[in-house]
Amino acid sequence: MAKLALVGAGMMGSALCVPLSDVGHELRLIGTPLDELIVRALEAGQAHPKLGLTLPSGVRAYPVARLASACEGADAILLGVSSAGIDWAATTLGPILEREPRPVLLVSKGLELSPAGLRVLTQAFAERLPHQIRDRIQPVSVCGPCIAGELARRVPTLVVLTGRDADVVGRFTRWLATSYYHPVPSADVVGVQVCAALKNAYAMGVALGAGLHRRAHGERGSVAMHNYEAAVFAQACLEMQRLVLALGGDACTALGLAGAGDLQVTCNGGRTGRFGELLGFGHRTQEAVELMQGATLECLEVLGVLEQFLGRSAASVSHADLPLLTHLIAVALHGAALDMPFGEFARA
Amino acid sequence: MAKLALVGAGMMGSALCVPLSDVGHELRLIGTPLDELIVRALEAGQAHPKLGLTLPSGVRAYPVARLASACEGADAILLGVSSAGIDWAATTLGPILEREPRPVLLVSKGLELSPAGLRVLTQAFAERLPHQIRDRIQPVSVCGPCIAGELARRVPTLVVLTGRDADVVGRFTRWLATSYYHPVPSADVVGVQVCAALKNAYAMGVALGAGLHRRAHGERGSVAMHNYEAAVFAQACLEMQRLVLALGGDACTALGLAGAGDLQVTCNGGRTGRFGELLGFGHRTQEAVELMQGATLECLEVLGVLEQFLGRSAASVSHADLPLLTHLIAVALHGAALDMPFGEFARA
Repeated sequence: MAKLALVGAGMMGSALCVPLSDVGHELRLIGTPLDELIVRALEAGQAHPKLGLTLPSGVRAYPVARLASACEGADAILLGVSSAGIDWAATTLGPILEREPRPVLLVSKGLELSPAGLRVLTQAFAERLPHQIRDRIQPVSVCGPCIAGELARRVPTLVVLTGRDADVVGRFTRWLATSYYHPVPSADVVGVQVCAALKNAYAMGVALGAGLHRRAHGERGSVAMHNYEAAVFAQACLEMQRLVLALGGDACTALGLAGAGDLQVTCNGGRTGRFGELLGFGHRTQEAVELMQGATLECLEVLGVLEQFLGRSAASVSHADLPLLTHLIAVALHGAALDMPFGEFARA
Repeated sequence: MAKLALVGAGMMGSALCVPLSDVGHELRLIGTPLDELIVRALEAGQAHPKLGLTLPSGVRAYPVARLASACEGADAILLGVSSAGIDWAATTLGPILEREPRPVLLVSKGLELSPAGLRVLTQAFAERLPHQIRDRIQPVSVCGPCIAGELARRVPTLVVLTGRDADVVGRFTRWLATSYYHPVPSADVVGVQVCAALKNAYAMGVALGAGLHRRAHGERGSVAMHNYEAAVFAQACLEMQRLVLALGGDACTALGLAGAGDLQVTCNGGRTGRFGELLGFGHRTQEAVELMQGATLECLEVLGVLEQFLGRSAASVSHADLPLLTHLIAVALHGAALDMPFGEFARA
C-alpha cells in the first residue's frame, strides 16, 4: 500500500479516491483554491457536493493552505485539476517536487500550442517545473472512458496510463487496479493524450445530430438522426487517427480506449454532449454557453487550440485532411451555419 | 439514369428506393416470397407496412411471381434480402443472370462457414451462381451505418461499397449517390463485410450495460453504465480489427464507417440493442428471443458461425485474442452468467 496525495477535489479527482481507497492506500485529498466549499463539506463528513455521495471514510480532505504539509511523505502525487489548472499546479507543486521528487499522475486532458507545435499535457506540465527536476519527473497521464460519477459508484471500466517512464507507468498501474477499474499501460504518450483532448471536440460534433432531431420535433427512438451521428462518429475516429499520426503517435490508438472508447462515452454522458445538442438545435455558441450555466467546455478550448495549430503553414496536417474538425471550428467558434460536409468525409 | 431491379421489399431494400428514386432511376421493387403482404400494400398505393411511409410514386412493386419479367432489361440487380435469403436469391437469380449478366449489389450482411474458412456474403452468393457466370458476376456489398427507417426519411449518412471489380463498385457509387446518401468505395472486400457482420454481435455486448443498469433500478441519465458500455465498445473495435486482420482484411477498416461507425449506430437503434439489453437485464436467451417476438437476430447467427470458426484448430485467431466475443458466445449461446472479463481486455 502507498501514501498518495491527490490534488484537486473536483469530480474526477474525488472519484479516483474510491478505487484507491478500495485498494487500501492512505489517501490525502487536497483541494485547489477553487475547491474550498468541497473541502469544507468533506471535512464536515458530508457528501461530496458534486458527486452526490460520501467518500470512503479513510479519505482525509485538506484545504489548499495545507497542500505542502499534506504532500509530505506521500509516495506519489496525483493531479485532478482541469487543464486550465495545469499552470497553477506546476507552479505550486514545483518547489514541493524539488524538495522531494516523486511520481506524478495527471488526470487532466488538453492540448497546448507552443512555438514548437502542439504539446500534450504531460509535456506542458513537466516544462513548467523547476529546471533542476524537469527530467526527473516524467508525469503519467490517465485517459480513456471514465465518467467520474460512475467511477465513484464502481461502474466497471478500462483506462489507459501513458508516460515516458515505463517503470512509473507500471507503478501507477499496480496502485490503481481494482476489480472494476482496469488501467492498461500504453507507450503512445502523444497519441493517447491527443485522442483524450480531441474526443471532446468530436463528441460535440456527434451530438449535433440529437439537436437537429429535436429541432425537427423528432422523438427519442430508434428512428431519429442516428445515421447522421454514426457518420460523424466514424469520421471523428478517422480524423483522430490522422491527427495522432501527424503528431507522431501510433495509428492504432484512435481505435482503442483513448479514441473510439472515450469518444463513445463522451457522447453518452455529460456536458459536451448537451452543448453539442444545443448547437445542433440552432443556438449560437454564446447562447449555448449561457444555457450551460458556466460549465467548463473543453470542446471549445481544444477547437481553439487546433484552429491556431492548423493556421500555421508548417503544420503536418491540413484542413483538407480534417473536414469535420474544420466545420466544427467554423460552427462553434465563428457562428457558421451548420451544414455537415458529408461529401468530403472518408476520402483518402 | 439506370433501370434498376431491387429484389426484397423489406425495410432496407425498400428504403433504398428513396435515394434511388431521388436520383431519377427507373425502379422495380420485387418482393420475395416473404414480402407478399408488403407488395400488395404497395400495389394498392398504401404506405409500406414496415417503414410506415409511402414510397416515392415512381417505384413500381412486383410480386415474386413476376420476378423474372421485372428483371428483364434492368441495368443492375440490387438484393435487399436477409442473409438467410442469400441461398434462395442465388438459386432464383442464377438463371436470370445467366441469360443477362449484370452488376449485382448485396444489402445483406453475414458470414458463412465453409470447409475453406469464413466466407463473406459476396463470395457466398457468387459461389452459388451457375458455374458459367460465377467469374463474371462480382457482387458489390453495401455496408456501414444506415438505419433503414432513417434512410427512408432522408437522414444523411455515409456507407461503404466494396467488391472485387472496382469498375462495378464505381458504377454503383455513382448510381446511389445523393445529397444525403454518400457511398464511399473501399477495396477491402473481406474487412468491410466482416465488420458489418460482427457489429451485430458486439452491439449486443455493448447493450448489456443498459440492461444491467435497468436491473439495478437505474434511471436514464449521464450517470448509468456508460463506462461499462464504452469499455466494451473499445474492446469490440479492437477485436473486430483482430478478426479482420486474421481473415486477410485491412487494419484500418475497423476504425471507419463499416467498423466503429456501424457499431455505433447499431448500439443506438433497433433490435440488436434491445436484445442485448434483455440479456443484460437477466433474461435467458430463449426468454429474450420470445420477448423480441420473432425479430431476426443476426447477432445470434454470427455468434454461432464464429463459435464454429474458432473451434477449428487451424483458425488463425483464437479465443485468447477475443475475450469479449468468447464471453458473448458463452452468455448468449450457452446460458453462462454474465461476468464481463474486463481484466482480459486491451492486452496485446
